[in-house]
Amino acid sequence: MYCLLKLAPLFLAVAVCNGWLFGDFVGKQKEQDEISLWPLPQKFQSSAVAFKLSPASFQIVHAKQSSAGPSCGLLENAFRRYELYSPLFTFEPVLCYKRFCSLCVDELSIDEPSAVLKAANVWGALRGLETFSQLVYEDYYGVNNINKTDISDFPRFAHRGILLDSSRHFLPLKVILANLVTMAMNKFNVFHWHIVDDQSFPYMSRTFPELSQKGAYHPFTHVYTPSDVKMVIEFARMRGIRVIPEFDTPGHTESWGNGIKDLLTPCYSGSSPSGTFGPVNPILNSSYDFMTQFFKEISTVFPDAYIHLGGDEVDFRCWESNPDIQKFMAQQGFGTDYSKLESFYIQRLLDIVAATKKGYMVWQEVFDNGVKLKDDTVVEVWMGNKMEEELQNVTRAGFTTILSAPWYLDYISYGQDWQHYYKVEPLSFPGTDAQKKLVIGGEACLWGEYVDATNLTPRLWPRASAVAERLWSDKSVTDVGNAYNRLVQHRCRMVKRGIPAEPLFVGHCRQEYKGL
Amino acid sequence: MYCLLKLAPLFLAVAVCNGWLFGDFVGKQKEQDEISLWPLPQKFQSSAVAFKLSPASFQIVHAKQSSAGPSCGLLENAFRRYELYSPLFTFEPVLCYKRFCSLCVDELSIDEPSAVLKAANVWGALRGLETFSQLVYEDYYGVNNINKTDISDFPRFAHRGILLDSSRHFLPLKVILANLVTMAMNKFNVFHWHIVDDQSFPYMSRTFPELSQKGAYHPFTHVYTPSDVKMVIEFARMRGIRVIPEFDTPGHTESWGNGIKDLLTPCYSGSSPSGTFGPVNPILNSSYDFMTQFFKEISTVFPDAYIHLGGDEVDFRCWESNPDIQKFMAQQGFGTDYSKLESFYIQRLLDIVAATKKGYMVWQEVFDNGVKLKDDTVVEVWMGNKMEEELQNVTRAGFTTILSAPWYLDYISYGQDWQHYYKVEPLSFPGTDAQKKLVIGGEACLWGEYVDATNLTPRLWPRASAVAERLWSDKSVTDVGNAYNRLVQHRCRMVKRGIPAEPLFVGHCRQEYKGL
Repeated sequence: MYCLLKLAPLFLAVAVCNGWLFGDFVGKQKEQDEISLWPLPQKFQSSAVAFKLSPASFQIVHAKQSSAGPSCGLLENAFRRYELYSPLFTFEPVLCYKRFCSLCVDELSIDEPSAVLKAANVWGALRGLETFSQLVYEDYYGVNNINKTDISDFPRFAHRGILLDSSRHFLPLKVILANLVTMAMNKFNVFHWHIVDDQSFPYMSRTFPELSQKGAYHPFTHVYTPSDVKMVIEFARMRGIRVIPEFDTPGHTESWGNGIKDLLTPCYSGSSPSGTFGPVNPILNSSYDFMTQFFKEISTVFPDAYIHLGGDEVDFRCWESNPDIQKFMAQQGFGTDYSKLESFYIQRLLDIVAATKKGYMVWQEVFDNGVKLKDDTVVEVWMGNKMEEELQNVTRAGFTTILSAPWYLDYISYGQDWQHYYKVEPLSFPGTDAQKKLVIGGEACLWGEYVDATNLTPRLWPRASAVAERLWSDKSVTDVGNAYNRLVQHRCRMVKRGIPAEPLFVGHCRQEYKGL
Repeated sequence: MYCLLKLAPLFLAVAVCNGWLFGDFVGKQKEQDEISLWPLPQKFQSSAVAFKLSPASFQIVHAKQSSAGPSCGLLENAFRRYELYSPLFTFEPVLCYKRFCSLCVDELSIDEPSAVLKAANVWGALRGLETFSQLVYEDYYGVNNINKTDISDFPRFAHRGILLDSSRHFLPLKVILANLVTMAMNKFNVFHWHIVDDQSFPYMSRTFPELSQKGAYHPFTHVYTPSDVKMVIEFARMRGIRVIPEFDTPGHTESWGNGIKDLLTPCYSGSSPSGTFGPVNPILNSSYDFMTQFFKEISTVFPDAYIHLGGDEVDFRCWESNPDIQKFMAQQGFGTDYSKLESFYIQRLLDIVAATKKGYMVWQEVFDNGVKLKDDTVVEVWMGNKMEEELQNVTRAGFTTILSAPWYLDYISYGQDWQHYYKVEPLSFPGTDAQKKLVIGGEACLWGEYVDATNLTPRLWPRASAVAERLWSDKSVTDVGNAYNRLVQHRCRMVKRGIPAEPLFVGHCRQEYKGL
């Protein structure tokens, strides 16, 4: 698919007024280094020549040569968003759904009589529209200006994700949608939805409604209905964002046990059950029957080609306490190595999910434990210690990987911690070029222990913006001072668009946050 | 002044329905330890007997014996707020303005046929209304209940403050008012308004309008007009909160210099001025003439008996570089001890302010430097190291003091840092009973370097609530586990009332935050 977008008629001529009406302000147009693009494009050439945009006549149109036209609802919708920028939570069906292509070079050229955006596909067109919107600035009189500019752009990494956790605290739909809007402003393209965990199960399953009825914080108010999930997926797609749901097993499943009898392992205290439960019971066929049905549903509800299957932090103590598990271990010849039992479970689960034709992502432990993985598995490296060694090992084994270890944004500290996130170089580990190519991106993770609707958005932004630029812009873009200046403006842009992104340091925005 | 408030007709009889209509839920009324009062009253006796409140007939009225009546706008206003709790930003003139009395024992008795709140003054009545509102809880059917209860209450410390900083970032009026509302929910009674500093001067002065015209981040949008200031003061007063403004000199004054010529000391680089400026110039009479006029205005704009004069963190390097200052130092016989010059300035400033009949508060350095202080001076101890030694010294010298050192809430860290604030015992320093009595309270300080409208409220609450209970409740109230359980409910109560107070840990509120 090849979309050529002609943005016309964009401009009023600048010549007439500048001579005398604007008097003192001739030459006060923004210089190249004042333009606050975020993340920085791959190639960017701006001149001091500025054109004015008139609200009365500005519009974005399909170019005649474009393969996309008015029937492409996704672009029509995006045109409307960017024509009068407002992060409205619109939701509309679209007609032109294509697979993502994130690594094509797209071009944006701002000149008279019109600006032209060339994109290889609709996703590139969306990114280009965001770039265009960031180039527009108000002059002293409140008139929108845009400088003559040429941009060629593409992301450095294909997978640029944000993990939100709706289990430790339920996140109202409004919060998720607002953060999808903000992700698009930062050119993130993956929403890793850590939707359930020990604490609660808000996902409402059609096949197993008792999971949320008994596992959610509240069965009516703290759940995501099928139509909620559909809305999140579609709202994200309209902004070029994939939704990868995570259903983490066999650990992190306490809330699953409320609704599904015998799914979890009964823990023992001495020779009798203690009344508490551990990970998914890996020795019962019923567990695998359940997973088969459950992931069959998940594979149809979520259109993305990948599902995240978790597999992290399995606590062996409950398995060790259970005599039936002990017997099974002996039968299988696992000795007392419970990681073998974990692998036994994961192996069967992966086969179940593979049968749904989905690819899967897993946390690094699954790889570390030697589970046999499909070639297209994506391994997520999250442990901070020995991170480079892990990247080496995973890529040496030929698996694609994404990095989240340096970007656990739930850990907060006093001061400008965004700089730490910004300074990470994902490919600094020792390895061949082929190994480096297997690192397809990264994720900023905002785990939910201390985060809910009250504080999520300002805690995530603009700290995650640092990760956004690291994953989009060229490896050479590392100047923290330059980044600071652009990020200050980018954060005010988010505030102006209604997002409570917190300040980097002292200062002000021309237009401060209007909410609470 | 003695107000007796009779709250009637409060209740519908509980007997009829409980027998069969409510079936299973008889006996499911809240037990005493489930009631989530915050801060905990001094004496509290609750029974499992519960009364139901009907929205149709519930009202709060003046008791016949009360010295206050319908002409007391402050109470009428409070009655309306608490009858249908909603943190509306109402603003109305009131008739019965009296001086604060914060240490009287007030009583609240919930029983049939009516609850009675006895308070020695309107401020105690306001606190009692808040307590009353916290006793009300919804049963399974959404009906409001209140248990038979007897409470005697008074604050342990008279000065319970929150410092907000509107200079590092401008805080829109809406944010300040919302936090005054939340302060009242936590029984704080002092808003320490750190209104100006180096970074900006948002206070619009009638006498010197150029201070904000040239010193604010923006002369129209980032200022507090006289009517804004008046609204803050009145809005606070309606909730029993004093407003103590801080105009910090001679340091922290960079923004003052934009509007007032020659107010700041020109710094020198070698033998010529460097173009930068330091603290207020203490050797010019014009500086003192300015301060005389300026504080004359401040003393009339702010009705509180105290003004905070700052006096912290004076950087001597600029004074040291300036040849005129050096000459003055020699004339005065100060040698090279610039703290003597600082004291020289502060001494004259204190005399100027004393002439306005106001009391003053100062940061601890002013005391440390040996400045002669009026007997009624309040010294604020903010330095964490040698805090106990400082408290000893200040009280040994006979000065009243407030403590903020352990409660700098701008410093954030991962996890439940509210517990650190909670565990502080303000009177743990060695000293006589007379010395301990001089510690009249404390303040939670949220300095503004990293805080603005986007993140202030969730960062402040419920962390400041820990300080609220430390300053209100009995010294023996130190059980962190019990506090956790109550604070979880108190934070959900704040959320329900529209305040984005952040979560303590995993869990949920029956009604989550509805904003962004």
